[in-house]
Amino acid sequence: MEVLGRHLLVELFSCDVKVLDDLSAIEAFMKEAARVSRATIVESVFHRFQPHGISGVVVVAESHLAIHTWPEHGYAAVDFFTCGADIDYWRAHDYLKQAFAAGDSEVKEIERGGERDAVGRLGRRKQREFG
Amino acid sequence: MEVLGRHLLVELFSCDVKVLDDLSAIEAFMKEAARVSRATIVESVFHRFQPHGISGVVVVAESHLAIHTWPEHGYAAVDFFTCGADIDYWRAHDYLKQAFAAGDSEVKEIERGGERDAVGRLGRRKQREFG
Repeated sequence: MEVLGRHLLVELFSCDVKVLDDLSAIEAFMKEAARVSRATIVESVFHRFQPHGISGVVVVAESHLAIHTWPEHGYAAVDFFTCGADIDYWRAHDYLKQAFAAGDSEVKEIERGGERDAVGRLGRRKQREFG
Repeated sequence: MEVLGRHLLVELFSCDVKVLDDLSAIEAFMKEAARVSRATIVESVFHRFQPHGISGVVVVAESHLAIHTWPEHGYAAVDFFTCGADIDYWRAHDYLKQAFAAGDSEVKEIERGGERDAVGRLGRRKQREFG
C-alpha cells in the first residue's frame, strides 16, 4: 500500500488577533489557501464561537483544509490534508502565514495510509516521525 | 501557553469496503462517533467522490472530526481534533473501528498549540515527537 495522503499540521503563532476572530476573513483566506495550493473546493463550513474563536473546514476534491483559532492566544491550528500529488500545501502555508501576519509557524508533515511492513505496522511513516 | 488542542490521527485498515463507500452510513457513524466522545455537533459536510471514496467533516463545539476513505484499499484516515478537556476521542476511535469492521488501526496523538520555551519553540510538543 503506497502512501495515500500527506498531512501538514501547522501551528501559527503571534497572529493578528482581529483576523483570528473575523469569520468572513478566515473563510476567504482558507478558500484562497486552497486555491493557491491548486486544490479544488467542493464544500465548506465555518462557524464562530462565543465569546471568540472560529472553526472552519474546506472540503476539497483532494481531501480537506481545517482551521481552529484562539484569538486570545494569537494562535491558529491549521490542517492541510491531501491525497493529490499535484497539491502544494506549502504554498497554502506560506500564504496563510502572511495573511494572518503570523510571527512564527511550526509545521509537521505526516504521511497517511503509508506502507506497512511485515508485522502490519506503518514502517515508513514511523521512520519519518522518529528518525 | 498551555496545550490548547489534542489531535488523534487514526488510520483504519482492512475495513468493510461497502461501508467505506456508503455516504449515509459514514455520515451516521461519524456523527455517532462525535456523540460517544461527548462532543457537541455544530455542522457537518459529507461528499462522495467518483468513482469511489468519501470525505466528510463534522464541526463540533470542541473542534472537528474528519474522514477520508479509500474503499479500494479498505482504508480510512480519520482525524479527531479537540480543545475540550471532557472529550474522549478514544471512545470515538473504538466505536469507529468496530463500525467499520477494521482489522487494524494505528493512532497517533499530537498536542496542538503546546507550551513554548524561552526561544519561542514548542518545547513540550517537540519532546513528545522526538523523545
